[in-house]
Amino acid sequence: MHGEYWDKKKETLKREELEKLQFKLLKYQVKRCYENSSFYRLKFKKAGFYPWDLRKLDDVSKIPFLYKGELREEQRRYGPSRYIVTSKNLIEAYATSGTTGPPILSFWTHNDREYIVDVTARTLWAMGMRPGLKVQNAFSYELWPPGFAVHYAVQRIGGFVLPIGGGKSMLQSEFIIGIQPDVLISTPTLALRIAKRLQEMGVDTGDLSLKFGAFGGDIGAAIPNTRDLIEKLLNLDAYDYYGIIEIGPTFAGECKEKSGLHWSEDYHLVEVIDPNTGERVSEGEKGVLVLTHLVKEATPMIRYWTGDLTEIEYEKCGCGRTFARSPRGILGRTDDMISYQGINFYPSDVENIIREFPELGVEYVIRQDRDRCVLEIEYDRNLVNTKRDLENLRDEIRERIEESLGIRITVKLVDKIIVPYIGVKARRVIVNI
Amino acid sequence: MHGEYWDKKKETLKREELEKLQFKLLKYQVKRCYENSSFYRLKFKKAGFYPWDLRKLDDVSKIPFLYKGELREEQRRYGPSRYIVTSKNLIEAYATSGTTGPPILSFWTHNDREYIVDVTARTLWAMGMRPGLKVQNAFSYELWPPGFAVHYAVQRIGGFVLPIGGGKSMLQSEFIIGIQPDVLISTPTLALRIAKRLQEMGVDTGDLSLKFGAFGGDIGAAIPNTRDLIEKLLNLDAYDYYGIIEIGPTFAGECKEKSGLHWSEDYHLVEVIDPNTGERVSEGEKGVLVLTHLVKEATPMIRYWTGDLTEIEYEKCGCGRTFARSPRGILGRTDDMISYQGINFYPSDVENIIREFPELGVEYVIRQDRDRCVLEIEYDRNLVNTKRDLENLRDEIRERIEESLGIRITVKLVDKIIVPYIGVKARRVIVNI
Repeated sequence: MHGEYWDKKKETLKREELEKLQFKLLKYQVKRCYENSSFYRLKFKKAGFYPWDLRKLDDVSKIPFLYKGELREEQRRYGPSRYIVTSKNLIEAYATSGTTGPPILSFWTHNDREYIVDVTARTLWAMGMRPGLKVQNAFSYELWPPGFAVHYAVQRIGGFVLPIGGGKSMLQSEFIIGIQPDVLISTPTLALRIAKRLQEMGVDTGDLSLKFGAFGGDIGAAIPNTRDLIEKLLNLDAYDYYGIIEIGPTFAGECKEKSGLHWSEDYHLVEVIDPNTGERVSEGEKGVLVLTHLVKEATPMIRYWTGDLTEIEYEKCGCGRTFARSPRGILGRTDDMISYQGINFYPSDVENIIREFPELGVEYVIRQDRDRCVLEIEYDRNLVNTKRDLENLRDEIRERIEESLGIRITVKLVDKIIVPYIGVKARRVIVNI
Repeated sequence: MHGEYWDKKKETLKREELEKLQFKLLKYQVKRCYENSSFYRLKFKKAGFYPWDLRKLDDVSKIPFLYKGELREEQRRYGPSRYIVTSKNLIEAYATSGTTGPPILSFWTHNDREYIVDVTARTLWAMGMRPGLKVQNAFSYELWPPGFAVHYAVQRIGGFVLPIGGGKSMLQSEFIIGIQPDVLISTPTLALRIAKRLQEMGVDTGDLSLKFGAFGGDIGAAIPNTRDLIEKLLNLDAYDYYGIIEIGPTFAGECKEKSGLHWSEDYHLVEVIDPNTGERVSEGEKGVLVLTHLVKEATPMIRYWTGDLTEIEYEKCGCGRTFARSPRGILGRTDDMISYQGINFYPSDVENIIREFPELGVEYVIRQDRDRCVLEIEYDRNLVNTKRDLENLRDEIRERIEESLGIRITVKLVDKIIVPYIGVKARRVIVNI
């Protein structure tokens, strides 16, 4: 059908050609935002920026960043009407989960859906999705666009989809046995929960029908030991998957090389910005991901500050695709960074260590208050029998963290832990300073 | 686009032509079930029925009924494999909610979806759905096909859909204000809950953007006083809507005449059966609805015993449509019938009375044990201030029930009631005998 690529011409574009395309699309996009959205017109004017200031691609740096708080305030005051750039052919709308504030709405025109389905099909194709394969789609539906994007894209490819939605780990496990899907799409946390359920049911990993899984909505598949654990427990290839509601649900994913997230630079301008200077960082350096919609019609985001940290590389991947990659995926969110004992670290650093221990459960949470930092983790009572074993395990985890991150934190092993959720994402860090 | 009909030729077919079409489709359907599904082959053989026994449409009575329990047992033992008639072009699967037993799976081929979208678009078109209208779709998604059927059909018509899903009455209310939808699609209970929320928010009914609503998943829009209440509180036209997971999500609905459910007899053979004799009842007589898929490819149901009670009429509707109608919609479920003091009645009979009282809330539940029958209803503390008022209200309700149904039941007015749900349906009757 498409060989190894969904769209070979685009996925192997030379950077020079790509940048030409990006510049053309960017100019058009910025002009239509300025002309049709009073939100953007006011915002640009206030920053002293005008569409005709864009004379080359690098001039994108003249455009002010767009922050989530700004969008939220805009929506609270005026609703979405001022940032909708066109209402022509609107077919769907989605919303951020809104548990940290009012939901932010994202509208799709018919063309917006076409591009979103195309880019989602592309990411799934790169992982091995093919016509006739069965997908258990455990991404949520109902206002959350990743569920729908995957649903549409699987059908565009010619596959079968079970639209089960998020959560329901018991039912998920039963359907994995009953429906025998080739593909599981879920958050990494849910994948691990399903794996534990299947273990409890006494299912032999070797009997599972799953070939591969795309795991997103939360970092996890990019954390080496979490990926290894998912792969081992579900006997599949686990790929990292990325999207955010405001931009698009599922527009970056790994290929079979597992060499990091491939961005879709024909549809999105991808920048990595030093949060202190507001300037672009060099290749391979860490910074905040800033995204610009190049083709989205209804509610395009221009220089959207995602808050997610990543590094970017331009070297061609082993798979032959030329778009920029984030080799280690998303490294954390600026909001999630923990400062303790003078050292900055992310929950993902801790998670990578936790996954080394088979005695531990899926869930963990990091609580920080004025004086101390406590890591609470579930452990498996069947594998840790004595008090002595428990103490040894706790000490071992604490030492691995000190060795790896250079900090001494308190480790508490517990039977059962209730992790708070923000929408579909686990809230792993609870700061109370 | 289509004038007053989505598909005029089919919707105004003469009965003679319709029956010719039905017989042709039925013969083909039964033959392919017999030839390709070992479940049906065994079932038919056991009943001494063979496809060649079908010599005229009425011979459908020779085919044994198919009960939900049978399907459940089949699936428990063998999974869905034996009742799947074709696996070619399978694109989606859905499931009953499964809280009363393991979920029953229904599979859709590409053609199955096409017909389901067509029949759903037809029902929505008859209510006034047109290109460009905005729909707030509060039917659940995630394994529950009505959400998807409406989603697809609205887009087929050329409308806009907000896929919010079921529940979330606060968010629903906020979106009704923020998105200003023309159409609300939900269960009748959720519609009333949303209405109460909007009241609490101090929203003036006259300011609402809603033009009409389709209410299904539960009887309610067919209960005269519930319909009136929804129409008054949300300032819209309320239409009754019907479907069941095993057959199809949304295949019967009212037209602007509000003269009952219009069946889609080109896609489904509709029978009303006397549960005592197993024979068809006469026109206008009450019996159990039995449905046969005429075109469904993947998992067709042949003479499926829905358990829902209805009456059927063949007179042409004022709208010009000729398909059979159920003028009073679904009258109840055989399972829900309450026998008390020698009289049989349904929760809908009670609900119709409850809705006469503006002092009452949305929720109610009927508890029956050996000695007595108790109706618990929520009331509004703001409208009933004194103990005296409360007692008067209680007596009034009890008298109306006695007058209307001929039974004396205990009425309890409570602040807050938790109604158990089976999937998305409220469980209104709790029997503990």
